[in-house]
Amino acid sequence: MTDRLDLLALGNAIVDVIAHTDDAFLVSRGLRKGGMTLIDEASALTLYDSMGPATIISGGSAANTIAGAAALGLRTGFVGKVRDDEAGAHYRHDMRAQGVAFDTPAATDGPATARSFILVTPDGERTMNTYLGACQGLTAADVDEATVRSAGIVYLEGYLWDPPAAKDAFRKAVEIAHGAGSRVALTLSDSFCVDRYRDEFLELMRGGHVDILFANIHELKALYQTADEATALAALRGEDLPHDHFVAAVTRSEEGALVVTREQTRAVPAFPLERLVDTTGAGDLFAGGFLAGLAKGLDHADCARLGAMAAAEVISHIGARPQADLADMARQNGIL
Amino acid sequence: MTDRLDLLALGNAIVDVIAHTDDAFLVSRGLRKGGMTLIDEASALTLYDSMGPATIISGGSAANTIAGAAALGLRTGFVGKVRDDEAGAHYRHDMRAQGVAFDTPAATDGPATARSFILVTPDGERTMNTYLGACQGLTAADVDEATVRSAGIVYLEGYLWDPPAAKDAFRKAVEIAHGAGSRVALTLSDSFCVDRYRDEFLELMRGGHVDILFANIHELKALYQTADEATALAALRGEDLPHDHFVAAVTRSEEGALVVTREQTRAVPAFPLERLVDTTGAGDLFAGGFLAGLAKGLDHADCARLGAMAAAEVISHIGARPQADLADMARQNGIL
Repeated sequence: MTDRLDLLALGNAIVDVIAHTDDAFLVSRGLRKGGMTLIDEASALTLYDSMGPATIISGGSAANTIAGAAALGLRTGFVGKVRDDEAGAHYRHDMRAQGVAFDTPAATDGPATARSFILVTPDGERTMNTYLGACQGLTAADVDEATVRSAGIVYLEGYLWDPPAAKDAFRKAVEIAHGAGSRVALTLSDSFCVDRYRDEFLELMRGGHVDILFANIHELKALYQTADEATALAALRGEDLPHDHFVAAVTRSEEGALVVTREQTRAVPAFPLERLVDTTGAGDLFAGGFLAGLAKGLDHADCARLGAMAAAEVISHIGARPQADLADMARQNGIL
Repeated sequence: MTDRLDLLALGNAIVDVIAHTDDAFLVSRGLRKGGMTLIDEASALTLYDSMGPATIISGGSAANTIAGAAALGLRTGFVGKVRDDEAGAHYRHDMRAQGVAFDTPAATDGPATARSFILVTPDGERTMNTYLGACQGLTAADVDEATVRSAGIVYLEGYLWDPPAAKDAFRKAVEIAHGAGSRVALTLSDSFCVDRYRDEFLELMRGGHVDILFANIHELKALYQTADEATALAALRGEDLPHDHFVAAVTRSEEGALVVTREQTRAVPAFPLERLVDTTGAGDLFAGGFLAGLAKGLDHADCARLGAMAAAEVISHIGARPQADLADMARQNGIL
């Protein structure tokens, strides 16, 4: 995969196991609504046994993003670790079927392909419980220098700080990308993930390792340890970052997104939504649309519009991968 | 599982692998739109490799029906054969999570759990390509006499004529059920299935082995080898069946259903539909709703209304198992 790529993503390769539930079930199990909680294998089995009939769809945050970008016509690649089991084979199928190059070798022993047990409440909110499984085997050796050098943008998820050796893969990819003159994008992933790795994420930003930042407003507030939105945004705008082309896209659910650069902050409204079914993947697809816009040379506001559109599509159905023809949808809405 | 059951279903235990596609893909692959085609393992692999990202959801015609009936509050059981693989384990999880007793032992060798590769075109029509796999191992030994005797209604799918030994399981279940004074329901499954086993299905009806018949109008026309709807219905009404309590529910997509008994034919309209996404499972869920109505002592027209409602829910999303709370939906619509 040394053809030129528009976008290469590194992330946890996770199969989503999605069931409908009600708030009482979350309460009875002590689950933190709306969040992503890491669970061990025993807890995963117990939860699975107690949850309802489930739909299985490939997921993983950065992987969802790259699927969205591929659906919008980008040349894409993915680096992530599955096991050589049924779930891992299906995961690879789905990546390649979406046109994403995915050549990271599967683990031949150790834990099973990762699963996120996602409980969707009637309000469309999702509560994720993730067993990292084979993701724990991702190492710097899985990062191929030529592939990273070939990519215009390298996208990394904050969740990569969870598996023990994946941060080495992350750092290696950043170093190669910047050495090759490519841009590096980071998503803060989840406010609890930010709580776990705040110092590392700030260090990455302040060290000039991040050119494009994705965060929802909760994550941004967690990053700057404030409950106030305006304070968090001011802190972001006040960062004296080495990259003067730095851009951050801050999403705020139905209130739309803010695009923050050194020069200005622009607001872009949420895309009109027919019905909210399952919020899983909203942030991932926003990033996918935004990055597709960047790769196509759109201005930041149009990048955010494309992101908002991709997010709206993915929350109108179960699962965090696009089901509609995003490129066609973008053309019909005059964004592409 | 010797507690009294309202409904026991025998069927092929099949995992659905569902992808969106367009008509051109069906044409290029020579696939028969709207039908169910049996394929071997090699063809299954080839098709899978060429199809888009796919959602995995438990399926199987009679199993979908029993899931719908369970969602409507019936005490239910299922007999079907999976392999002891990941797909089979998930299939069992889904059955039990829906409240369906499912104790048929998994095969410990031989082919994998069955898969149906389902291609959904933009018009919502589904084209099914089924690899029967482990279903081929279902035999009469899997039919437990006490379980069958405990069931008020035993439901059988015509597709059971496809795997070599399943028809023996079918016949054994019919014999036990009628010996115990229970009712036997049959779905004709698919018009091509009717073409394969027309004589057997007519013999079952005329021999008094079927008390409740489900067919869509295409299957009924195939049964009586006519292209004319009125002729097919007249042939059904003209059958001199030994059971004077015989009832047939004939579905006609958006034109609603007809309930045919010796005395009369009643028409019940289709349930209002918000949007058509995927027709997979429409007939299965109609049967599930109808049988739930029968078990609850509703009159035939209300049984058909309950069936139409369950069918409308399942075609409003991807996958052939209910996602909404069917019992609540039925109460809100004044049917239960």
